[in-house]
Amino acid sequence: MARGELIFVGLGLHDEEGITLRGLKAAREADVVFLEHYTSLMPGLSLEKLEEMVGKPIRLVDRHVLEDLEAEPLISEALRGRKVVLLVPGDPMIATTHVAVRIRAEEEGIRTSVINGPSILTAVMALTGLQAYKFGRVVTITYPEGGFLSRTPYEVLRENRARGLHTICLLDARAEEGRFMTVREGLEIMLELEEEMGEGLVGPDSLVIGVARAGSPDAVVRAGTVEALLEHDFGPPPHTLVFPAELHFLEAEALRVLAGAPEVLGRGA
Amino acid sequence: MARGELIFVGLGLHDEEGITLRGLKAAREADVVFLEHYTSLMPGLSLEKLEEMVGKPIRLVDRHVLEDLEAEPLISEALRGRKVVLLVPGDPMIATTHVAVRIRAEEEGIRTSVINGPSILTAVMALTGLQAYKFGRVVTITYPEGGFLSRTPYEVLRENRARGLHTICLLDARAEEGRFMTVREGLEIMLELEEEMGEGLVGPDSLVIGVARAGSPDAVVRAGTVEALLEHDFGPPPHTLVFPAELHFLEAEALRVLAGAPEVLGRGA
Repeated sequence: MARGELIFVGLGLHDEEGITLRGLKAAREADVVFLEHYTSLMPGLSLEKLEEMVGKPIRLVDRHVLEDLEAEPLISEALRGRKVVLLVPGDPMIATTHVAVRIRAEEEGIRTSVINGPSILTAVMALTGLQAYKFGRVVTITYPEGGFLSRTPYEVLRENRARGLHTICLLDARAEEGRFMTVREGLEIMLELEEEMGEGLVGPDSLVIGVARAGSPDAVVRAGTVEALLEHDFGPPPHTLVFPAELHFLEAEALRVLAGAPEVLGRGA
Repeated sequence: MARGELIFVGLGLHDEEGITLRGLKAAREADVVFLEHYTSLMPGLSLEKLEEMVGKPIRLVDRHVLEDLEAEPLISEALRGRKVVLLVPGDPMIATTHVAVRIRAEEEGIRTSVINGPSILTAVMALTGLQAYKFGRVVTITYPEGGFLSRTPYEVLRENRARGLHTICLLDARAEEGRFMTVREGLEIMLELEEEMGEGLVGPDSLVIGVARAGSPDAVVRAGTVEALLEHDFGPPPHTLVFPAELHFLEAEALRVLAGAPEVLGRGA
């Protein structure tokens, strides 16, 4: 019954070398290869190199096409009986749109599967040296929309902190506008939320960790006070923020040795 | 000042094809390559194939060696000015031992870095179709020790559920004893904890998701009641459990279409 096949393949982080051998093999064996045009999250990615590796032309699709469930070229190619690969940054299926496309493909009788890639989430855990089982819910800090600033990051930080859990804050990325939130912008938004909410979660002396270009050979991980990190130059995007909760001894040592934390700092403002 | 180099490379999931191109390149360029002997978590991994890919013999180290900070061969090889790669399952640095070794190496003047691989954590998120930002703290269900059963999994489930967050339960893996907790054993332990704690978090009708061999071509994802999953044959390890919280519409559809959930089930016992 299966008519064609659709495989979601994670490209991992930074550039075309973030893909796994399994993922590359699938792309080489595919009849048609699509790339989600979100390459700006992968600053080192070269379409030409990727096409050379895969041995065939790669067709770009953007999120808008994926969101338009009427017209995905992926589905129609699979319905023609072809083996289709969609390459996406990081680990696939983290985005709602991928899940929606996968469900629709299955409902049309197309066989689907996922080949995982390295994800920004565990890369950030790995780079900071903080313990994976101490991370709470992840959240995204977004740019204000029409003057309105989402309070979700502050609320998630509060909930995680109350449970002694670290918080990874992904930072807004608007590829089509060429806007990528920096550590500095993310911190400014959190300070603005602190001003609004006034619960004392984030202040100039709070310990925070900035991560730039996770997964790339020139990744930067820097722990320090909010005040210090506001002034630190992290270089080009993508950036990520981590607000640590209370630190285990080994975690504090990791931040000092691996992330240049000047001394072991407490939590809170 | 740097004397040698130590690179932690993630092998990713299942077999030798889970490594990234960047990771493989680093291993090929290394003077010495070690493999953390935890291969049983990667049932498809072949040392011979890995050695062929890397182009040199690979030395096995086990967790006990890594834990013995006096004697790691990794450190001494790096101190001799060599470029050392340590291959580890999944994404590196998730284990405390890796962080401790990395800190010690840095303190000895050895340059260290991390090359990420696919992780079981995001693979499970991806395979279930549940939304990444709705996962709470991760927990491991462990075998009883001397008749004592850790209550942590139940407590973490309670905390996550109260916040509307899904819970990934990693399952105990005792490679040296050849014991790998199955979905069935994990569920039996959670039911035993329910009996002890009596808060009504887990019962025969609770919705749960079993994942087997995440990241492999024959991964199995199955959603259903605890009662149904106790009887389901998931095949060989490794297994993982997910206790979902309240489901978003798209998540419920994903579980139905991608994980064979018989119908949309509520949460709770």
